[in-house]
Amino acid sequence: MSNHDRDPVLLTPGPLTTSLATKTAMLRDWGSWDAAFNAVTARVRRHLSEIIHAEETHVCVPLQGSGTFSVEAAINTLVPRDGHVLVLVNGAYGKRMAKLTQMMGRRASVFETADDVPTTPEDVDRLLTADRSITHVGLIHCETSTGIENPLQAIAATVARHGKSLIVDAMSSFGALPIDARTTPFDALIAASGKCIEGPPGMGFVFVRRSVLEKCEGRCTSLALDLYDQWVYMEKTTQWRFTPPTHVVIALDAALAQYRAEGGQPARLARYQANCKALLDGMRALGFASFLPAAIQAPIIVTFHAPADARYTFKAFYESVRDKGFVLYPGKLTQVETFRVGCIGAITATEIRHAVNAVADTLAEMGIRAVTPARAVA
Amino acid sequence: MSNHDRDPVLLTPGPLTTSLATKTAMLRDWGSWDAAFNAVTARVRRHLSEIIHAEETHVCVPLQGSGTFSVEAAINTLVPRDGHVLVLVNGAYGKRMAKLTQMMGRRASVFETADDVPTTPEDVDRLLTADRSITHVGLIHCETSTGIENPLQAIAATVARHGKSLIVDAMSSFGALPIDARTTPFDALIAASGKCIEGPPGMGFVFVRRSVLEKCEGRCTSLALDLYDQWVYMEKTTQWRFTPPTHVVIALDAALAQYRAEGGQPARLARYQANCKALLDGMRALGFASFLPAAIQAPIIVTFHAPADARYTFKAFYESVRDKGFVLYPGKLTQVETFRVGCIGAITATEIRHAVNAVADTLAEMGIRAVTPARAVA
Repeated sequence: MSNHDRDPVLLTPGPLTTSLATKTAMLRDWGSWDAAFNAVTARVRRHLSEIIHAEETHVCVPLQGSGTFSVEAAINTLVPRDGHVLVLVNGAYGKRMAKLTQMMGRRASVFETADDVPTTPEDVDRLLTADRSITHVGLIHCETSTGIENPLQAIAATVARHGKSLIVDAMSSFGALPIDARTTPFDALIAASGKCIEGPPGMGFVFVRRSVLEKCEGRCTSLALDLYDQWVYMEKTTQWRFTPPTHVVIALDAALAQYRAEGGQPARLARYQANCKALLDGMRALGFASFLPAAIQAPIIVTFHAPADARYTFKAFYESVRDKGFVLYPGKLTQVETFRVGCIGAITATEIRHAVNAVADTLAEMGIRAVTPARAVA
Repeated sequence: MSNHDRDPVLLTPGPLTTSLATKTAMLRDWGSWDAAFNAVTARVRRHLSEIIHAEETHVCVPLQGSGTFSVEAAINTLVPRDGHVLVLVNGAYGKRMAKLTQMMGRRASVFETADDVPTTPEDVDRLLTADRSITHVGLIHCETSTGIENPLQAIAATVARHGKSLIVDAMSSFGALPIDARTTPFDALIAASGKCIEGPPGMGFVFVRRSVLEKCEGRCTSLALDLYDQWVYMEKTTQWRFTPPTHVVIALDAALAQYRAEGGQPARLARYQANCKALLDGMRALGFASFLPAAIQAPIIVTFHAPADARYTFKAFYESVRDKGFVLYPGKLTQVETFRVGCIGAITATEIRHAVNAVADTLAEMGIRAVTPARAVA
């Protein structure tokens, strides 16, 4: 692949295919102390906040590193040392949130459902009623492990009714699925540059309710991950506390300009829905079955059952499709053999149809005539 | 500045001016799961280790985020919960190391000398003799606050003689100043992509003595910053644990290829020394005095006394020089009015001489005929 002149199309949950305009924005060097760069940081923060209508209630705090760094930063900054986080788990990212909460010495309880079962507001109501010591609820909006969408709006209302604090990992949904901070109560919501805004990876950002963050001084046990300190310093100086990934910030700014020009969140969602439909239609025509029922399938990433054929191995399948120009993603389920295909990035249904054709060609080359899913779904 | 077609020359401690070849490497998107990308990660780690001859004794663990994230990760991964770190301070980065150590709940003691006084091996010998509870020593090799170089080799020998563990922040020296892991005993040494290797900012890396890291499982109180976990996962899978800053990694790989082609560390040091000499000669001819005596001035960044002239303000001076195409850096000293000029990045003495000329033009425009330093040095 690395010898090809053309980039492969990345059908993954990120890093994903970015536009040429986003990449060429990285062809300049910027001083992190300079006013011109800090004006870009301010604009990025404002444009990100506008996407979820959070300008009045929340502040956008960017943070260096991958999205997980921002998730850990949100928990460590918001949850008091004697806090108790209920983490709602139906995949690897929920498990990760629980693990990092425990590693930093905060109490975490886990409520886990199966990979294909969304958490319900009734679950949350029951759990918060049963254990009054819970102070915070952690939710993964769209679990990239499978592509499942959890009911953010309804769970947020339930958590608010109990007077608890909601922390949302919206890594793979932000910018594509509708989120409205005016009507969906949360204290923190986390996403990253390299997902549905279609920037390069390298930074995350956390929307924190201003009235909550103002009370978080001294809570964080990490200097690098202290969102209160990052926010106060940025408000005072317009600069990042520590060296920002300047090229990534500039490219994210370019990606946001394209996002707005495309028509913002509704247009981005429509394109991803079209990608997802082209993917599901095409793969079904080849005999593949998707793991999740349509009602809980977010148009972000789709998990497919692997073919129940002795000639199939993911490695050979992956490499053949990649050599045709499309990078798929491995499955993350332990009980059943699957693979994943992303619908996000600077791509359209045309690229998706090409990818499905490449999958068909690969199956033929592997001698797999009819795809029977390794485990049939209802 | 942002309307100019030409990038300004960044005379800062980083982010700095990178080559066009380094920037154009970012014009591709890479899947973080793909073998082609993971081969690049492996090559970057190997080339970084070779620079300080650490291949036999240490492992190179890359980490997302700014250099400070890697410093905090090194302390949190290596220092046991009941450890005691002696931090040697003569500037802002030493203070930062002490602060982050205390924030994570580890014991830290500070030995502070003035900004222009290097720590000596005699200091360290005395301190380690006096307090046997110290388990680790933290040292800043080159303090970017002023540009001062601390005697790494001699201090490392002293720490080793006491049987203690040395953690070195070599952020702004790595790749330029000679460091040899075969003869300089340290357990961890930290640097970042956007410094003397001349890559874009966005990731750090830590060289950890393999025999030490092997015993660090479960020490870190942060998931994101756990270097043991990052290392074990990378060894097992060839991949990063969490989404890597793919474009930054690829650009760092390109920067390392240029570093090797230039002649490695000796050639890089020679270029920076020539830059530093051109800077000191040119600025002295204009009447400026540097803050540090030559013997302890690293050829990385130079602190100059501001002119003692009522017409001088750093803001006006900075903006005028910047509009001529050169980005300077503010001073970081509290007692005396200074500014800083970096010698590092993809620049030569030619750019430095242009910058000195721009400073001369700016002084003339400000009506400052003769520069008298705000505080004379001996």
